[in-house]
Amino acid sequence: MKMYMDCILCFVRQSLEVARYLGADESTQERVMKRVLAEGAKLDMRLPPPLSGQMVHRIIREELGQADPYLEQKDRFDRMAMGMEAEYREKIRRSANPLETAVKLAIAGNIIDFGIGLVGDGHLHEAIEHALATAIDPRIMERLEREVRGAKDILYLADNTGEIVFDKLLIELLGPEKVTLAVKAGPIINDVTRREAELVGLAEMVEVIDNGTDAPGTPLGQCSREFLERFESAALIVSKGQGHYETLSEEGGRPIWFLLKAKCSVVAEHLGVPMGAVICQPIGRRL
Amino acid sequence: MKMYMDCILCFVRQSLEVARYLGADESTQERVMKRVLAEGAKLDMRLPPPLSGQMVHRIIREELGQADPYLEQKDRFDRMAMGMEAEYREKIRRSANPLETAVKLAIAGNIIDFGIGLVGDGHLHEAIEHALATAIDPRIMERLEREVRGAKDILYLADNTGEIVFDKLLIELLGPEKVTLAVKAGPIINDVTRREAELVGLAEMVEVIDNGTDAPGTPLGQCSREFLERFESAALIVSKGQGHYETLSEEGGRPIWFLLKAKCSVVAEHLGVPMGAVICQPIGRRL
Repeated sequence: MKMYMDCILCFVRQSLEVARYLGADESTQERVMKRVLAEGAKLDMRLPPPLSGQMVHRIIREELGQADPYLEQKDRFDRMAMGMEAEYREKIRRSANPLETAVKLAIAGNIIDFGIGLVGDGHLHEAIEHALATAIDPRIMERLEREVRGAKDILYLADNTGEIVFDKLLIELLGPEKVTLAVKAGPIINDVTRREAELVGLAEMVEVIDNGTDAPGTPLGQCSREFLERFESAALIVSKGQGHYETLSEEGGRPIWFLLKAKCSVVAEHLGVPMGAVICQPIGRRL
Repeated sequence: MKMYMDCILCFVRQSLEVARYLGADESTQERVMKRVLAEGAKLDMRLPPPLSGQMVHRIIREELGQADPYLEQKDRFDRMAMGMEAEYREKIRRSANPLETAVKLAIAGNIIDFGIGLVGDGHLHEAIEHALATAIDPRIMERLEREVRGAKDILYLADNTGEIVFDKLLIELLGPEKVTLAVKAGPIINDVTRREAELVGLAEMVEVIDNGTDAPGTPLGQCSREFLERFESAALIVSKGQGHYETLSEEGGRPIWFLLKAKCSVVAEHLGVPMGAVICQPIGRRL
């Protein structure tokens, strides 16, 4: 998926919002914004939108002199989600279709995305209610179940902290023994890195690799050789969130399932769904 | 008033909105936005915000190859307001305080501002209702009335088309024989130029001069010598709209009355009023 004009507005807005959120003073805000504008002026619109997010957040980290500005928020959301983990594991176990419930919860967790906007605790509960109430086409769920059962290995592309706890509940159903979790190689917004995979107990459950980038997505041209080998060979790929969708939506040659909430108008339009829609679909196929 | 960080977001957003509104194709939109971003990256934040509006709209006119892209809209709003002219002249005549009613209507007309956003016909009626229902401090109205009566000449800084018809009704009360109307020297958004002052019949009623600029305001450093002489010598200055306020808010040495609607959060905050507030105040004095 390429960059849209609206993506430019969005990353300019984000750069100011984030600089303020992270407590930057006026002159730092000005330096951040002006560097972002200068980069924007020479942006290649054929690139996928997460590469502008990568650019903005590299500038933010440099100008603020902080290697991981969201560290505290990442841990807060991980702890919050871990406080809900046992309750939702039980909810999945008791439900009529555990895989479907786990998928919906994992998608609901995708609301915890500081790249889109600031998230309050209430947003998560609302997203869970909404996701659980959303009907997923039974044929889609049957196909997912069949493909999961048949797959000898699954590459799971992690997205955000907090959300990762719900991914853990889904991975428990997919079969941890055949799942490899791919995380980001370095801090980017509130995305999961190896550190957070360890924090929520996923690192002792599945193999964890990183994708070699600090982009909020999977830009294959930037990924490590190790990641690319897994990406090319995996029997099934579960891709969580907008960023991976935006960078992999044209990779029709790979068996990718996209699980996400459509959180911005550009992605919603690209998917042909309303904003906020719960998406569970194999590549090239719509619910 | 200086540039704020939010002004940058606003003019980037405007540049896309306007390019689309004026029917620019994707590649023209991209050229407009990238030139705006490049200019924004080297912006002097000490300048008043209308200078960024001037920059954006110069780029728009160049890239679209149109000298006056809003011409049709300007004429449409002038005609619409002229259709209401007789009715509101009568309303002013019959009201308990004609000057106050005329001031409120002239401020309501200030909603017709394409620099802020697109305006529908309904917005004007809503703004008129709101302005007429707004209480203006009687001491402020008495002071304005006294200063108008005592002034040997009045310089009236025109703002937008459509709005100008309501200015005409106010100028009829101020005394056309002592009013000079200052318009923009060239097309900028939907601001009044000499052409529109003629179209609504003001040119035959008062002397019309231009301020020497195509900025949506009065940046004194860019104004013509003729305008500056009038600005320095006028016994009273009536300044319509945000753009003039943003460029003249520090000119405490001149007897300026600001009449405007506070249409953006930055100006509202600078004035210490809520968004949408009806402002009628001499410089340095708040309602």
